[in-house]
Amino acid sequence: MTDDRIEFDEPSQAILRDARKLLRRKERKAAGEFLVEGRQAVREALRAPGVVKWLFVQWSAARDNKDLVDKARESGVPVYAVSQQNLATLCDTVTPQGVVAVAGHIDVPLDTLLQHERSQPEGDKKHRRRDVALVVICAQIRDPGNAGTVIRCADAMGADAVILSTDSVDVYNPKTVRATVGSMFHLPIVTGVEVEDAIAACREAGMQVFATDADAGTDLTDLHDELAQPTAWVMGNEAWGLPLEHLSLADKTVAVPIYGHAESLNLATAAAICLYASASAQRAGEH
Amino acid sequence: MTDDRIEFDEPSQAILRDARKLLRRKERKAAGEFLVEGRQAVREALRAPGVVKWLFVQWSAARDNKDLVDKARESGVPVYAVSQQNLATLCDTVTPQGVVAVAGHIDVPLDTLLQHERSQPEGDKKHRRRDVALVVICAQIRDPGNAGTVIRCADAMGADAVILSTDSVDVYNPKTVRATVGSMFHLPIVTGVEVEDAIAACREAGMQVFATDADAGTDLTDLHDELAQPTAWVMGNEAWGLPLEHLSLADKTVAVPIYGHAESLNLATAAAICLYASASAQRAGEH
Repeated sequence: MTDDRIEFDEPSQAILRDARKLLRRKERKAAGEFLVEGRQAVREALRAPGVVKWLFVQWSAARDNKDLVDKARESGVPVYAVSQQNLATLCDTVTPQGVVAVAGHIDVPLDTLLQHERSQPEGDKKHRRRDVALVVICAQIRDPGNAGTVIRCADAMGADAVILSTDSVDVYNPKTVRATVGSMFHLPIVTGVEVEDAIAACREAGMQVFATDADAGTDLTDLHDELAQPTAWVMGNEAWGLPLEHLSLADKTVAVPIYGHAESLNLATAAAICLYASASAQRAGEH
Repeated sequence: MTDDRIEFDEPSQAILRDARKLLRRKERKAAGEFLVEGRQAVREALRAPGVVKWLFVQWSAARDNKDLVDKARESGVPVYAVSQQNLATLCDTVTPQGVVAVAGHIDVPLDTLLQHERSQPEGDKKHRRRDVALVVICAQIRDPGNAGTVIRCADAMGADAVILSTDSVDVYNPKTVRATVGSMFHLPIVTGVEVEDAIAACREAGMQVFATDADAGTDLTDLHDELAQPTAWVMGNEAWGLPLEHLSLADKTVAVPIYGHAESLNLATAAAICLYASASAQRAGEH
């Protein structure tokens, strides 16, 4: 079949059924695969070698996504054209963007992560660093959007990894994937480890461990030279924060200062501010 | 009627109908009223004198919300008990929290705002400031959650006001109200003004104007002493940012640095980082 000179296969019912299953966590886990929806996320997934298994494009959106189709074909990824109705069955959004990929899980084991040397954006000599210097540990984060936004922020701030503890939201939840806007394909993600183990590994890799806590005696603004040191930030659950047993493992507990009347900051906002403070202090130290 | 020694009236159909109408923007505008849902938001609304008109409590949640009922009655606010089904018709959430208030609009005119002297949290002498020193101008922000999160952050960072330009999302949208988590009752909100007029008013009040722009030549980390000066931050639309005509009105255009591979930061995240940078620099300058 052709659509304005782009030729497509149509997927078998079995392929569609296998893709659709991935809307359920249990099936994602069993298959080791997940759904990636939307242009930007699919583009970043296709840039990561060997990650995308299938690409689905809505017939009527095929021309708008020709770059993604070409990229997929160059990489040997099968591309399937589907109707708008069929595409909608692969998405949990009300307004799908006309392109969905099936990708293999991208999380890495905790121990490989800390041997990892991070690639830097080309030409970004100003911001170059060598070792693992900034990591976020999400301890029992439950909201898919929060987890995704933290990953996006961590990527923006040049963090070296994000670790999601056991009992955190599934990083392959479509809402989480969407909220990362492709950033989950940019930096190593570790999932399903105990907070204790994550902290121990980060410390072994030479990082200090800061835990965020609204009631901490140390304000983020009280930190100076130590902010420039390699740091793992531990962020707690949206509702109950970090339990004492995790707070006590940190070198320091730190509060983002509240100057006004708000009771608290959104978790992703607090993470962004802490990561920005670390990332900018680390780079200021290099000048 | 009684529910465990708390006595309630039931609302007339006319009252329920008038409240329900407020789910629609047009009706909110016509009535000058809006819906406030959830314990924390309702509590903060009740603390603002003369704002709440009616309080609706779900029968089965009456005991859990006794503090709010008492507070409302002390203030002469009529309290109505309703069924779970009736309460659900006043909410746009899937899981309402059992309490909804009808409140009068709280936005203030642009000119009163800049004469405003902000009250400070009690006992917070460390962070005390006198004049209008920090304002956020949201230029055509369209996402209700983003607008609410920016208001919550602005409150947390001790900002003196948030201004939403014409063509921004309705601040009384239930999703925006929910995302502010009560912060919209903590600081003055101005709505429906042109970006040009908002900038002019802030400058007249002695503030410098910084516009955020991903392509700006100045990184937030390049700013030093000037960050401590009274500042109005202009944040642009989620998709297209700020048009040249608004960027050109600013004293400086500023980018939040991206150290990693992410293309951009979420609007509310960028706002949080800029506000944190200003608020902490302003307070550091006072020591």
